Amino acid sequence: MQNPGLLKELIQSLCCLPGVGQKSAQRMAFHLLQRNRDGGRQLSRVLSQAMDNIGYCRDCRTLTEAEVCEVCANPQRDDAVLCIVESAADVWVIDQATSFKGKYFVLHGRLSPLDGMGPDQLGIDLLEQRLASGVIKEIILATNSTIEGQATAHFIGEIANKFHIRATRIAHGVPMGGELEFIDSGTLSHAFNDRREF
Amino acid sequence: MQNPGLLKELIQSLCCLPGVGQKSAQRMAFHLLQRNRDGGRQLSRVLSQAMDNIGYCRDCRTLTEAEVCEVCANPQRDDAVLCIVESAADVWVIDQATSFKGKYFVLHGRLSPLDGMGPDQLGIDLLEQRLASGVIKEIILATNSTIEGQATAHFIGEIANKFHIRATRIAHGVPMGGELEFIDSGTLSHAFNDRREF
Repeated sequence: MQNPGLLKELIQSLCCLPGVGQKSAQRMAFHLLQRNRDGGRQLSRVLSQAMDNIGYCRDCRTLTEAEVCEVCANPQRDDAVLCIVESAADVWVIDQATSFKGKYFVLHGRLSPLDGMGPDQLGIDLLEQRLASGVIKEIILATNSTIEGQATAHFIGEIANKFHIRATRIAHGVPMGGELEFIDSGTLSHAFNDRREF
Repeated sequence: MQNPGLLKELIQSLCCLPGVGQKSAQRMAFHLLQRNRDGGRQLSRVLSQAMDNIGYCRDCRTLTEAEVCEVCANPQRDDAVLCIVESAADVWVIDQATSFKGKYFVLHGRLSPLDGMGPDQLGIDLLEQRLASGVIKEIILATNSTIEGQATAHFIGEIANKFHIRATRIAHGVPMGGELEFIDSGTLSHAFNDRREF
């Protein structure tokens, strides 16, 4: 079948989704065309609206279609605690998994000079402004536990020190329900060094 | 985060794709918004065009945006051999995997009276018209090897008999490269009964 036009184009476009290769894209295209055209139309409409209308929150830089996101605009959330994360997806998972009721700040990356990610790209100036305002009493460093994530946490911790603001880091160790036998040695060694009174 | 509007809607819409649950949909939404907005816009555009413009080929019932699909419109393909498949996706995989140069006929399902799939839904009248035209010398029954697929192949084989047209069925047996140890017993027993001269 030489160049079946639109169908082939649809399959190729679906490949832009993360984790979707040629085979899955074919399956998706045929599924939508044969069984769920309304779903496909709806997806197209929402996708287009989302790409054009979702921007970044003025205060915390997370993804939102408003000028200020729901979390920042919510008066019931605690202004005194600021959780600092690498990506907007992290805001989402922390809000679903924990009972955290403070606010967030999204870096959209991590310090990585070789990739051109410096303090300017991470919005550190905006963060400093917020820390300087005197409202914030604690920052929770929830960057990833990669080397770059740790370096970023360290860098921001220093800034918090400058403003005499308490900086905490989320706990690292053995995952809940994890069996020691299957935990990688780096995590296990960290868990031993970081042991707490019981 | 209560009702983040458009973002939540986007995640829900992505769940209409087969094999995509809440977690993958979140990952896809954040990926598109943070790293590939152009890809997202392109996908939205192609998706909308495809849902509205892709219909069914007049001759073989496969998916196409034209009145007659590329295969049916191609004068270099052999009109004398007709391969009968259950879905448009099968046309696609057969054309990619084999050197088949005949034409296709897509049933869009299989005989399954309990699900309301009878000869009318499978376009058997259109198929009979084509068989009656006298152009076709062989039909290849490439329906799935499920019970219903076999029943459908049998039913269409009988029709071919009526028109004195040769009907063949694709071979079933041990997959190429498959180790006997891991083959299910139904396939293995079929492969034994269907053994050929070597």
